[in-house]
Parts: sequence; structure tokens; C-alpha cells
Amino acid sequence: MTQTKEDALARRISEYLHAREGVAALFGLAMEGAGRGWAKCSMIVKGEMTNGHGVCHGGVLFTLADNAFAWACNSRNVVALAQSASINFLSPARIGEKLTAHAREEANVGRTGVYTVTIAAEDGRMIAVFQGLSRTAGGNVVEE
Amino acid sequence: MTQTKEDALARRISEYLHAREGVAALFGLAMEGAGRGWAKCSMIVKGEMTNGHGVCHGGVLFTLADNAFAWACNSRNVVALAQSASINFLSPARIGEKLTAHAREEANVGRTGVYTVTIAAEDGRMIAVFQGLSRTAGGNVVEE
Amino acid sequence: MTQTKEDALARRISEYLHAREGVAALFGLAMEGAGRGWAKCSMIVKGEMTNGHGVCHGGVLFTLADNAFAWACNSRNVVALAQSASINFLSPARIGEKLTAHAREEANVGRTGVYTVTIAAEDGRMIAVFQGLSRTAGGNVVEE
Amino acid sequence: MTQTKEDALARRISEYLHAREGVAALFGLAMEGAGRGWAKCSMIVKGEMTNGHGVCHGGVLFTLADNAFAWACNSRNVVALAQSASINFLSPARIGEKLTAHAREEANVGRTGVYTVTIAAEDGRMIAVFQGLSRTAGGNVVEE
Repeated sequence: MTQTKEDALARRISEYLHAREGVAALFGLAMEGAGRGWAKCSMIVKGEMTNGHGVCHGGVLFTLADNAFAWACNSRNVVALAQSASINFLSPARIGEKLTAHAREEANVGRTGVYTVTIAAEDGRMIAVFQGLSRTAGGNVVEE
Repeated sequence: MTQTKEDALARRISEYLHAREGVAALFGLAMEGAGRGWAKCSMIVKGEMTNGHGVCHGGVLFTLADNAFAWACNSRNVVALAQSASINFLSPARIGEKLTAHAREEANVGRTGVYTVTIAAEDGRMIAVFQGLSRTAGGNVVEE
Repeated sequence: MTQTKEDALARRISEYLHAREGVAALFGLAMEGAGRGWAKCSMIVKGEMTNGHGVCHGGVLFTLADNAFAWACNSRNVVALAQSASINFLSPARIGEKLTAHAREEANVGRTGVYTVTIAAEDGRMIAVFQGLSRTAGGNVVEE
Repeated sequence: MTQTKEDALARRISEYLHAREGVAALFGLAMEGAGRGWAKCSMIVKGEMTNGHGVCHGGVLFTLADNAFAWACNSRNVVALAQSASINFLSPARIGEKLTAHAREEANVGRTGVYTVTIAAEDGRMIAVFQGLSRTAGGNVVEE
């Protein structure tokens, strides 16, 4: 049952981070699941999240992806920080749409991790694809 | 005075977009200057902008950079959308710090533009460096 | 047998491109498999591929990943070109090592595609992770 | 004359790396200038550098940019390695064209550096824009 224990720890870490994230409250980010090396984070697009063209701001999409990435790259209980990330925008997201970001680990080598995060809308449209590079800083996120 | 006219139009476009950006109000984004191919956008880090480690969320930094990028890539009065962007995080930004993003055009070829955006704190610390790829969608942003 | 037919076409496209790639001959790139939305490309690191620190040049790693990406994003038989790409370097690759790049489709929306490419060494070490954005230009790659 | 001394050292470092780069000989890379935080590297596109569409391979463009980046990020005489990079492709480069990559420092914070590299053709066309993240590994490149 090692898998279960690791995933339970990962979930506890995501909940711990989630409770402390100012942005989580501001944007109404919800934790939709987490395990070792992965996490899902969702959000409903609101009027205050738009850009000048009236659709969801690219920075808000990045924030959603980056948050799922943070949960996933901290899921081994070693504090990890984002070093670098890239994002490709595929479809605009409209006010009222629920978006879900799914982060999964591509690689984990020494202090470095690489994660892919996809953002999809409820109708299945792919909104954006993100890739992040993390580096551990040392120390635990939560007590074990 | 062509330069001045172009810069005045660019400034008008930034103001037009700024007034319509839901995120601008939410984050208190301020327009600090704009001209053809460049723009400056500032923000003060607040408690609701933090990540789980208590510093400014990477997504908020991205949003600030992306907003300056949007003003700059729309500054020729052809509607342009972000296709892709990358960001490198250099120093954490703390609650209360004023950050300024400065977007400048690296290249503008056909329908495609590339912009570098630096984010600096008031003490001169470089917080992040962003690069964005835009593509024009056609149509004007404002009436000329 | 639609799947088989699509994959056979994808394989024919990879072979067609491979035969025309100057870089494929120069670097000894080998086609290790291809199907709709994915492709594998391998290479052995040689002395002429090094950087100033004596290990495989980041540009050669990028070329390997980019080549697998090109096969994958052209696999639907519509000419597609790379718009943008990012790469994260995880471990140095040494002279004599065989590296395999595996490209897979993350998203395919309208004219745009996003692909993740991992590069692994024979001992299982993850060398680099790449993400590419493609855009179709129109026209077929091969006759159907 | 501190500036001159620093730039002379930077130039010596670029020459040192250049002489050891397997890829420099393979691609005919030329050092066109270097100083603290910047470097220029040029190349003529040859038939063996093409992709399957007959123009310069994106990986070769990346290699050219990455090489100028390597010279620039090692120019302070502390061994530095690329962690991550992104590139945007703007115009195809044809066989016979001379391309010049110009790397310049955007930021240098602790062990981390960010560099923008532009690649231009002789007729002034912008071919690609690259951004790289470096991290120092310790040790000197050349003896001082």
C-alpha cells in the first residue's frame, strides 16, 4: 500500500498549500485530486478575470496551470519552486466556463522536475498546454 | 512628428484595453507608459496574490508581464493575441513590493511579434523575465 | 482498421521527411517508429556534437527532439511548421550514448498542435523534455 | 579600463569554448564578437542543415542561438550551463544565407542568468528569437 500512502501524503500537501494560497481564494481555485507527481485544479472563469478582449486573461490561465504544477512538484514533500515555465494558448475561455488543469510529472532528476499541465474546458476543448521546470529548495512542506 | 502620433495612438490603445481588463481592476494594474512596440505596467503585491509559500504567485507575475505584452503587441492598432509565452523566475517578490513590467518588441514579422518583458522591483531586483509570441487576428483595437 | 491505415500513413510521412532532412544524414538520425500524433527518433552522440564543456550540445538535443516533433506534427498529412518550442535540460549526454526522442501530441486544435517530446538515454536517464507548438501551412506532405 | 579587461576576458572565454565545440567545426560557427554578458556567433546555412521542407532546420537555428548564449553566460568566467530555453521561429532561412545570432544579458541574479538571443539574416530579416536560462556550476572556464 506504499502507493496509497504516497498519494495520501501528496493530497495532504496540496490541501496544505491550497489553504495558504492567497490566489486560491481570489480565483476560487478548487483541488480536484492529487497524488505523487500529479494534481488537478479547477476554476470557474469570472468577469474580473478577463483581458481587454473580454475573454479569460492568459495570466489567469497561467495561474491555474501553475497552481496545479506547484501542487504536483511539491508532492514528494520537499519544498520545490518554479524556475521556468512556458504556455501555449489554444482556445479562448469564456466567462462562466469551468476549467480544469491537470499537472503530471514528465521527469524528476535530482533537484529538478519537469511537469506538463493541460487546461481543458467542460465541453472538452483544450484551452492551453503548459510546461514547468521546478527545483527543490530543501525542507519539508508538511510534517510527516 | 510621426513618432509622437504613433506613440499617442499606442497610449490610447493601452488605456482602452486597460479600462476593459477585469484583471486590471482585480490586481490594481497601473499603466506607466506606452508607445509603439513597448509598454510599462505596474502593480503592488497584496496578500491575496500569494502562493502557498507566502510570496507573490508565479501566475500573478506572469499576469503582470502578459498585460504589458498585450499592450505592446496591440500598439500598432491591429488586434493581436498571445500564442505562446515563457517566463523565468529570478527572485521572489514580497507583499507590499511595487513591481514594474517593461515590455519591448524584439521582432515584428508579418502577423507575428516577439516581445521581451522584464519585471523589476523598486530596489532594482530583477524578479522575472518573460518572452511572448503574438499573432494578429485582424481588425482595429480603437477607431483612428 | 482505420487506426492502422492512419498509422501507416504517418509512418510513410516520417520516412518521406526523413529522406529529405539534411540534418538526418549529418547526425545519423534514425526513425524508430511513428503513428498518428507521435514519432520516435534516435541518434548516437558523436564527438562532433559536443559543446565547449565536452558533452552533447544543447542544440543537438533540441534538434533530435525537434525532428521527432516535426514527424509527429506532420503525421496527419497537412504540412505543419514549428512556431515555437521550449526545452528543459536535465542530464548531460556523453559521447557514445544512444538517445531516443519520443514525441506525443498533447493537443490538436484547428491549425495548431502542441507536442511534448522526452529524450532518454539507454540507461533510462531523462536527458531533456521539450514542448513544441506547430501551425499547419496547408497542402499535403505526401500523396494519398 | 575595467570594461576593456572584462571584455578581453569574455572574448578569451568565447575563443576557448569555440575551439572545443565539436558543433562549431561541424556547422562552421564563427565568433563575431564577445564581451561581458554578450556574444555574436554567425553561420552560413548549408545543404546538410535542412529539415524535410528544404529550409534550415529549427534545431540548427536553436544551436546557433544556444552557442551565442553559451559564450555570453560563461563570459564572467564561472562555468555556466543551460537549464532551459525557448525559441520562436519567425522566417525560414534558406541555403546559402549567412545568419548572425546576438546574445545579450537580460538579468544576472545569484547563480542564474537570462539571455535573449536574436537571429538575423544578412538582408535584415529576423529569423528567430531565443531566450535562455543559465545556472552557474562553479569553477572557472579559463585561467585568469
